[in-house]
Amino acid sequence: MANVPKSRDGYQWTPATGLVQGVPTLGLVQPSKKGLKNSKRYDVVVVGAGYAGLTTCRDLTVAGNSVLLIEARDRIGGRSWSSNIDGYPYELGGTWVHWHQPFVWRELRRYGMIDQLEVSPRPGMEGGSRVTVNLDGKVVSLSHDEESEIVESAFKKFINVDGVLGRSVIPYPHDIELNMAGVKKYDQLSMADRMAQVESQLTPLEKNTFGGFLAITHGAKWEEASFFELLRWWALMNYNYTDFMAIGLTYKLRDGQSALARRIFDEAIDTGRLDYSFSTPVKSVHDNGSHIVITARNGDATFEARRAVCTVPLNVLHTIAFTPALPSLKREASMMGHANQVVKCHAEVANPEMRSLGATNFPRGKLTYTFGDGTTPAGHTHLVAFGSSLPGAHLDPEKDISVTKQAFEAFHPDMKVQRLVFHNWHQDEFARGAWEWLRPGMTTKYLEALRKRHGNVFFASSDSSFGWRGFIDGAIDDGGRVAKMVHDELKMRDLPRSRL
Amino acid sequence: MANVPKSRDGYQWTPATGLVQGVPTLGLVQPSKKGLKNSKRYDVVVVGAGYAGLTTCRDLTVAGNSVLLIEARDRIGGRSWSSNIDGYPYELGGTWVHWHQPFVWRELRRYGMIDQLEVSPRPGMEGGSRVTVNLDGKVVSLSHDEESEIVESAFKKFINVDGVLGRSVIPYPHDIELNMAGVKKYDQLSMADRMAQVESQLTPLEKNTFGGFLAITHGAKWEEASFFELLRWWALMNYNYTDFMAIGLTYKLRDGQSALARRIFDEAIDTGRLDYSFSTPVKSVHDNGSHIVITARNGDATFEARRAVCTVPLNVLHTIAFTPALPSLKREASMMGHANQVVKCHAEVANPEMRSLGATNFPRGKLTYTFGDGTTPAGHTHLVAFGSSLPGAHLDPEKDISVTKQAFEAFHPDMKVQRLVFHNWHQDEFARGAWEWLRPGMTTKYLEALRKRHGNVFFASSDSSFGWRGFIDGAIDDGGRVAKMVHDELKMRDLPRSRL
Repeated sequence: MANVPKSRDGYQWTPATGLVQGVPTLGLVQPSKKGLKNSKRYDVVVVGAGYAGLTTCRDLTVAGNSVLLIEARDRIGGRSWSSNIDGYPYELGGTWVHWHQPFVWRELRRYGMIDQLEVSPRPGMEGGSRVTVNLDGKVVSLSHDEESEIVESAFKKFINVDGVLGRSVIPYPHDIELNMAGVKKYDQLSMADRMAQVESQLTPLEKNTFGGFLAITHGAKWEEASFFELLRWWALMNYNYTDFMAIGLTYKLRDGQSALARRIFDEAIDTGRLDYSFSTPVKSVHDNGSHIVITARNGDATFEARRAVCTVPLNVLHTIAFTPALPSLKREASMMGHANQVVKCHAEVANPEMRSLGATNFPRGKLTYTFGDGTTPAGHTHLVAFGSSLPGAHLDPEKDISVTKQAFEAFHPDMKVQRLVFHNWHQDEFARGAWEWLRPGMTTKYLEALRKRHGNVFFASSDSSFGWRGFIDGAIDDGGRVAKMVHDELKMRDLPRSRL
Repeated sequence: MANVPKSRDGYQWTPATGLVQGVPTLGLVQPSKKGLKNSKRYDVVVVGAGYAGLTTCRDLTVAGNSVLLIEARDRIGGRSWSSNIDGYPYELGGTWVHWHQPFVWRELRRYGMIDQLEVSPRPGMEGGSRVTVNLDGKVVSLSHDEESEIVESAFKKFINVDGVLGRSVIPYPHDIELNMAGVKKYDQLSMADRMAQVESQLTPLEKNTFGGFLAITHGAKWEEASFFELLRWWALMNYNYTDFMAIGLTYKLRDGQSALARRIFDEAIDTGRLDYSFSTPVKSVHDNGSHIVITARNGDATFEARRAVCTVPLNVLHTIAFTPALPSLKREASMMGHANQVVKCHAEVANPEMRSLGATNFPRGKLTYTFGDGTTPAGHTHLVAFGSSLPGAHLDPEKDISVTKQAFEAFHPDMKVQRLVFHNWHQDEFARGAWEWLRPGMTTKYLEALRKRHGNVFFASSDSSFGWRGFIDGAIDDGGRVAKMVHDELKMRDLPRSRL
């Protein structure tokens, strides 16, 4: 992996190089050698090369359809991608997977990658380091077991709206529609609302430890994040804290998510039925009733297809001009956007003793939570951290990297930062946010509308999937679901009349 | 569903008709209208139309390969199929599914069937009835909560070999190979061995209640069932009793498993690339190095293909003559066979108050465990029961149906049996047993060998899958895994030399 090519995405800082835009990734796609057939009308054009788009492309091409993939970036993976530096992966978006996530698990089997799971060495995996919690300026030191007890205790109080830890609200984690009354009730609440309800039951230590932990889930201002989404995560993670940690924060891929995305992309390529155009932001999608015409933002390139599958993130959808215009609910939802604006930031620190560090710095820190995530080839400690989205604390690392360095140093006085690697999802024009976390009321009002087709345009996204919505699994789920619908429809039209 | 056609498989008894062989099923396949092209050399011949074979056929045909499916029975589904009687499904084999079973869950999404899940109304779902346990002839009555507590307590003592409920033996439920030393240690033990180790810790009530419950897992003589397999189930079901019940015994499909099997089969058919021959037991599989020649048992029909995927059950594999001969480990494993010989037996009883009955009759009963599983169209109670495999108690219902009727009546004195529906897997020549439960030592000695290809013949089966081995999920998993291998190999050979 010596010559991993560089994407324009992401940033890296080292003392020697300073801040440099762009990091190496297995997900980079070199421009296609064969020229695009501009005159060709494809069966399907897929907009977006994240997991939803890649899965759509793969399923459709394997099933015999001609597909054109258009992607704004120079790489695959969307909001799940990894930078591979000196053979070591830093996950810059979606990271953790588990066998209770059915769709990504099936992909790992398909590509023989199940033995490439690695345990993300989070706090508690090894002895040595302690957890530190910044409590109004006073640093409290906890053992990992103590931290787990505190977070679990607070989490349960936060979640337990019905005396059975949410089970009555979401009896089927994969089919929330079964109890829309329950969805609506808790979708009205923001995280701040819910905290106000239970605050009196939490100790200050519980509140700050759990507060830092919550940054890993919603990455939003507390007033802007729906409490229902946390209930949904909790239900998907089997209604208990042990499984929440095991499913949500434990198993990652040895070579990074871009290695898996690559396999899906390559399988589509190998069919001989996928063309693609990267670094091609889409300006408009026109459905003339019989086919789709897509126009690129830069230049006059247009592409035609019988159907389109739009997989751009919710927060970006409204930047594309659709004709006929999108229904108002879709457009409103995109303009409003989901609320997660987290920055994911990695540090390589010359402190081997911090291998199992866990530390929170909530609510004051610009990074709210960090933990040891591995050992780098240099034998240093890899820490992953999550930026604050609280008012006044929002981190934009590329503006002044010293702020991020200081934010790491604030976790522990001995911290020796050797490298920073990050992706600022907040400032990313093709994402406009990190993983999906809807605002209060949005699940109730918009989710169903977001899934609906619009003429010959279909929509697939982790942002509006069933099941593991907001996760890698949801993206693959939705890409497969929509690919099947599109294929079935195209096939039906292709049948000789005698068979209809 | 008034005119659901009848398979030769299964039996039904009512007072009016007496015992009748063959029951209606959505899985029946009418003989193909288009004649088989005997002269055609297919890309792949798939032997067996259970979930493994169907998934193989579907994946291969969708990807563009020509496939011939050969099945001994007159129906799809193998050891997972349902009889649909007056619009009501009786599951005669694999039944329950869950979102923690990734491969079957993906299929349910693919075919839009997730909203067709129904809760199997097992004991505890409703008030009213009591659980009865036959304790050396004395019937003890328990509440459902009491029963759960007793089974959970006994189960934990039985499982807890390492102080952490098996987690150290099987840290990754989907990758048992990671700790073969642990596998070997507990694979040497039979259920009887393990019971001898913990018997002194169990009350008589625990022992008999748990013993009846265990019939649902292994269906074998206790000396012939590996204890490791139970550890593996426990790990797959998330290392706790609540999830064990939720995953293993709760959610079934509204129209029965044959409805799902049908969707997979129909998708393959719709590609136009699947031919099939049912009621065609295979006599021999000859690999001449360049292609496969399969000869049917009845008549002289032969079929040719470039590759074969053999999905027949482990216990049947040795009845097919392979040339070149199978490696000795494969043959030995098949001759030895897995140990599960359970009979699955349904009763419709005119006792609405038994809707949430649960009853065990262990070790004396010919049926060891029964529970309410729904309400029939007539408003009667549907009970599902599992036959004993203990020496002297083995049930073969078709030999004398009154024995089965009496076995149901033994669960409760007021039982009024109106209908019996069953499949005797013990006497089924094309299965020679129910779901896979290996004998002591077999996982260690044979599992890897069973998965290996043999020249141009590949093997896919729930009996030797990764992950949910012995479950519907394992069959779909393995069928997909092997289809991908076969497709990749055929495609590689088809490439123009210049691309190699």
